[in-house]
Amino acid sequence: MVNPLVLHPDRLFPVDPTIRNIARSLYANVIDLPIVSPHGHTDPEWWATDNSFGNATELLLHPDHYVFRMLYSQGVELEDLGIGNPDADPRKSWRLFAERYHLFRGTPSRIWLDWVFAESFGIDVQLGADTADFYYETITNALATDAFRPRALFERYNIEVIATTESPLDDLRHHRAIRESGWGGRVITAYRPDPVIDPEFEGFRDNLGVLGDLTGEDCFSWQGYLAAHRKRRAFFAEMGATSTDHGHPTARTADLPTAEAEALFARVTGENVRAEDAELFRAQMLTEMAGMSVEDGLVMQLHPGVYRNHNRKLFERFGRDKGADIPLPCEYVHALRPLLDRFGNDTDFTFILFTLDETTYSRELAPLAGHYPALKLGPAWWFNDSPEGMRRFREMTTETAGFYNTVGFNDDTRAFLSIPARHDVARRMDCGFLARLVAEHRLDEYEAAELAVDLAYNLAKQAYKL
Amino acid sequence: MVNPLVLHPDRLFPVDPTIRNIARSLYANVIDLPIVSPHGHTDPEWWATDNSFGNATELLLHPDHYVFRMLYSQGVELEDLGIGNPDADPRKSWRLFAERYHLFRGTPSRIWLDWVFAESFGIDVQLGADTADFYYETITNALATDAFRPRALFERYNIEVIATTESPLDDLRHHRAIRESGWGGRVITAYRPDPVIDPEFEGFRDNLGVLGDLTGEDCFSWQGYLAAHRKRRAFFAEMGATSTDHGHPTARTADLPTAEAEALFARVTGENVRAEDAELFRAQMLTEMAGMSVEDGLVMQLHPGVYRNHNRKLFERFGRDKGADIPLPCEYVHALRPLLDRFGNDTDFTFILFTLDETTYSRELAPLAGHYPALKLGPAWWFNDSPEGMRRFREMTTETAGFYNTVGFNDDTRAFLSIPARHDVARRMDCGFLARLVAEHRLDEYEAAELAVDLAYNLAKQAYKL
Amino acid sequence: MVNPLVLHPDRLFPVDPTIRNIARSLYANVIDLPIVSPHGHTDPEWWATDNSFGNATELLLHPDHYVFRMLYSQGVELEDLGIGNPDADPRKSWRLFAERYHLFRGTPSRIWLDWVFAESFGIDVQLGADTADFYYETITNALATDAFRPRALFERYNIEVIATTESPLDDLRHHRAIRESGWGGRVITAYRPDPVIDPEFEGFRDNLGVLGDLTGEDCFSWQGYLAAHRKRRAFFAEMGATSTDHGHPTARTADLPTAEAEALFARVTGENVRAEDAELFRAQMLTEMAGMSVEDGLVMQLHPGVYRNHNRKLFERFGRDKGADIPLPCEYVHALRPLLDRFGNDTDFTFILFTLDETTYSRELAPLAGHYPALKLGPAWWFNDSPEGMRRFREMTTETAGFYNTVGFNDDTRAFLSIPARHDVARRMDCGFLARLVAEHRLDEYEAAELAVDLAYNLAKQAYKL
Repeated sequence: MVNPLVLHPDRLFPVDPTIRNIARSLYANVIDLPIVSPHGHTDPEWWATDNSFGNATELLLHPDHYVFRMLYSQGVELEDLGIGNPDADPRKSWRLFAERYHLFRGTPSRIWLDWVFAESFGIDVQLGADTADFYYETITNALATDAFRPRALFERYNIEVIATTESPLDDLRHHRAIRESGWGGRVITAYRPDPVIDPEFEGFRDNLGVLGDLTGEDCFSWQGYLAAHRKRRAFFAEMGATSTDHGHPTARTADLPTAEAEALFARVTGENVRAEDAELFRAQMLTEMAGMSVEDGLVMQLHPGVYRNHNRKLFERFGRDKGADIPLPCEYVHALRPLLDRFGNDTDFTFILFTLDETTYSRELAPLAGHYPALKLGPAWWFNDSPEGMRRFREMTTETAGFYNTVGFNDDTRAFLSIPARHDVARRMDCGFLARLVAEHRLDEYEAAELAVDLAYNLAKQAYKL
Repeated sequence: MVNPLVLHPDRLFPVDPTIRNIARSLYANVIDLPIVSPHGHTDPEWWATDNSFGNATELLLHPDHYVFRMLYSQGVELEDLGIGNPDADPRKSWRLFAERYHLFRGTPSRIWLDWVFAESFGIDVQLGADTADFYYETITNALATDAFRPRALFERYNIEVIATTESPLDDLRHHRAIRESGWGGRVITAYRPDPVIDPEFEGFRDNLGVLGDLTGEDCFSWQGYLAAHRKRRAFFAEMGATSTDHGHPTARTADLPTAEAEALFARVTGENVRAEDAELFRAQMLTEMAGMSVEDGLVMQLHPGVYRNHNRKLFERFGRDKGADIPLPCEYVHALRPLLDRFGNDTDFTFILFTLDETTYSRELAPLAGHYPALKLGPAWWFNDSPEGMRRFREMTTETAGFYNTVGFNDDTRAFLSIPARHDVARRMDCGFLARLVAEHRLDEYEAAELAVDLAYNLAKQAYKL
Repeated sequence: MVNPLVLHPDRLFPVDPTIRNIARSLYANVIDLPIVSPHGHTDPEWWATDNSFGNATELLLHPDHYVFRMLYSQGVELEDLGIGNPDADPRKSWRLFAERYHLFRGTPSRIWLDWVFAESFGIDVQLGADTADFYYETITNALATDAFRPRALFERYNIEVIATTESPLDDLRHHRAIRESGWGGRVITAYRPDPVIDPEFEGFRDNLGVLGDLTGEDCFSWQGYLAAHRKRRAFFAEMGATSTDHGHPTARTADLPTAEAEALFARVTGENVRAEDAELFRAQMLTEMAGMSVEDGLVMQLHPGVYRNHNRKLFERFGRDKGADIPLPCEYVHALRPLLDRFGNDTDFTFILFTLDETTYSRELAPLAGHYPALKLGPAWWFNDSPEGMRRFREMTTETAGFYNTVGFNDDTRAFLSIPARHDVARRMDCGFLARLVAEHRLDEYEAAELAVDLAYNLAKQAYKL
């Protein structure tokens, strides 16, 4: 049993005793449910090779941009944390982090990390300057044992299925290796075609060349390009994919006549692509992807509204995904109409929307999802994947969209051990929300109990066809 | 007494015992206050003819787009619910609804419907597949009795006054009939001129023709058109109207010199009206309407910010108001300035603003209403007419606008029996909010008691001059 | 001891007994901390001359636009309150206010005023029509005593340091007089250059002339103008300033090549300045100011997003700051990038952002401040300087930015006696927020105790280098 001073059994539950008691009961019924992880960014190589994770810093600091961006905001250089700097001493990097653990007070990172420290590694003192080395050694030593290899952890945390995310250019060798290994864990891919859909993606034209080589299609002709997508989608589906994922700067969609689409394709695959053409092409491709989803049954996800690599200096020095992606206001009502006009009434099509712009929850997304058969709302995402963020999501979407136009939880992470920690937070927050509705006599307790299981498990399986 | 398992006496009150006790006391003083319903969309024909409502499906499903949009979002065809399909079996439609009643968990529809089932019809089991027929029969049988005729229900629910909403083209025959019937219920109209103000309204030019016929004015000349409005406003006032209502895509207003307004009028009543001209004309007409309100004393209401008929397929098949209206971001600060420059400082003019864009509560609307003498804030509207929506409204407007720049509750519904249910929700939520302020020692209990009555009754009467 | 019916010792704390008990403990440790007031609009003449404040109306009504805008919104003419009308009888003005004190129910003004009435003046009955004269006399009589002179009140309220805000054109004579007086109170200035940076400010060109006279620089040449800023900043720093402050309509920044900046300067100092040039110049000047802050160490503050003087009639009659400033939506992500590209990674530069657009808290500001070393978040500002506003600020920023990228409290007021009242509200609300995190087992109690002191005292001192 975990020391309650480190990880209290009632953590995150509402404080009122009536509500807390109901929350405890609801949570007791979901705590042991398997983890369904339909969207994330873990590395399939972990389970293909089953090699040990290296040390505490490599496991917990380097892949977690939530952690290193906070340290950076308070003056710690990324080089000193070992980011883009293989010469850094991982123990020293760990100390820099440990000494500043107070910076994470009130953040979800603190909650996830405390869970990992206590639940995964059995540590029962708090991280700080004085315990930095103890932590580093305890974690690093554990990682050298078989119990902490990727497959063992997958089983220990009762993961029923996990989806990774790959580019169409990926050969999915790791997924193939997992399947051929005879190991029983279900690790599937998802089709994330941004590198061959976004004309502003680094190396877009080269990527189309590779896509052509992989598929035998002429990816510089519109029809060949579309055919190549169909082939890669089919290959991804064969490797377990049940979904596609699209990370666009906006939610804009378009539905151009074929000749216009073809002309646009010619422009964005040529020289000097105009920003407006790039945006229109991404918009058109969302509708094309929706059409292919209607054909092949892959669930479609849209993650829009981020200004990527906002910090120019850091991007030039370290590349993508270094904690400098900043959300933007995002408009859905006009933006989605062309796609919804075509496919929004299709009851066999599932289109899951995410947002970082919480103002759209009650104003746009819940009304849209509470009307269109194809639309569902993804959970609170990224910066909002947090206790308060989850609470706001339920409070602002449920009254208009209900629970059944949502799709359960996504952990959406690169940090493997945070997966069970994040699912635990989501289950606790949902149970707390449901418990309040029960205590306010807005829901019967048996309904809340059903909903707790639906939100923790069933809705994700159903929505993602898992 | 209603079974507390179905309709708990403490429902919607905060759970904390201290707050709940205060909320109970406050609510006990407002529960029996008459209903003042200053804005809604009920059908005056009900009280003119006093004919029985037909069956459960006609009464509770067909007029309630909150209900059928949710069913539609989960794959139920509107035809099967009897929408636009007189051949549908109402009992089968009811079953489709009953089997899916779990979809409404956590929504205000569930709260309103449970109230109607328990309070109006005395049903004490929950709606579901197994009770569908029992419900259908109980309700339908009751509707055949005199106690469930429109006038009887009006009296049973202690409605002091209800306003319906009519187009200037309406002859108000039903309102006349009510007055001439000798029945004592106060049913008044409100002037909703969108069909003759919005150049993009279906049949706008034809509507102007009808308006000319009704008033003897030349409605294709600017001065004649304005004179026709004055005449119809006077006629509506004679038929009890104390307010006008305007449903515009934006809150934009304009105050053009007469010659420009006249030229604009010529353009929007001609061929090939440009979108920008239509928008500018609506903007100009809000200021014209404000000027007429200063003259004739009618309270002015603005309900902006909705993308109407977003679902093209449904609009083509079923027409307006089929659950596919989606809110948009709405800007008020620049938009309202031309009108406020003219009339905002007029202490005799009342201009009530609504929004579906909750981001404007604390940022724009409360600061505006907390300054301009003419401005008042309407209550949480439509998708936000819900427990959480009401709570957010009070939390985000009160500190800047106070309570006395708000106007009490509007039910704004087509679903007759939801009126007492909705007023009950509003009263409970306001009492809960006030109770928290008392328990946090931000308000004395006697002040909260006064405010509870003001919010439930006095403010609406005063603001709407009822 | 203050009568608990007037000023309850538990006011503003959460109601749940567990949370309230923790909040009480946290608050007990911060109640006696000195006040650090790093940003506000008090008048340094008060402490330079130490003259008595006149009467209740002059002290509490005239400088407080929160108060008189609310009265104006409910039909009270500003003239009758003595605004812009020296002939008004201050006792009659006070009565107009007292009779309408119920309008302030639920507002922070009510909380601040009740604090002042009870704590500063020892009054233990509520303000209203029947107690108006008693209040007026009690307050006015007290103000005639030495205990209520500005310096005595400064000491009574344990103000460690207070910053006023002055234009570069100010000769800072009052600050000089304070220093030369031998009195120990620390009153410092802050550099607020809007009148010489904003080409749309009344008298901009004349102001540049005065700036040239004060500095001996040619303020109609770009280099001379910049040199003049450097000189005045140095002078302000000499008079204690540790910060600059910028009140712009938007957060837009620019980083033009020198020749373009010079050409722009020529245009905005010429005739017929275009709005776009004015905006671009303000944008450029923010980056110039940031560069000077990197040089001279002054902390930079940005207060954007207000439509000033929205009510044309009132502005023409009474001038600025008459309660008709209305917030606007404000965009930060694109707007700040030019400045952040230059200086955002500088760990010695401190750039404190404020907003009136709460939608940016979780979407833009917390992600930016949780990444860039130079950025910090100012507290809930102006209309959001209120219990609910503070709660939303913590709930929407903490999870992404943490506590340590925020800077404690600013009172930002012209109403002197509201300073201790406002700090008390902030301390109570922060203790209540921290107490909830403790009771939800998201924070240890010792951490909350540290944080309470940091939020009430340390962070402001550190961020503003006080």
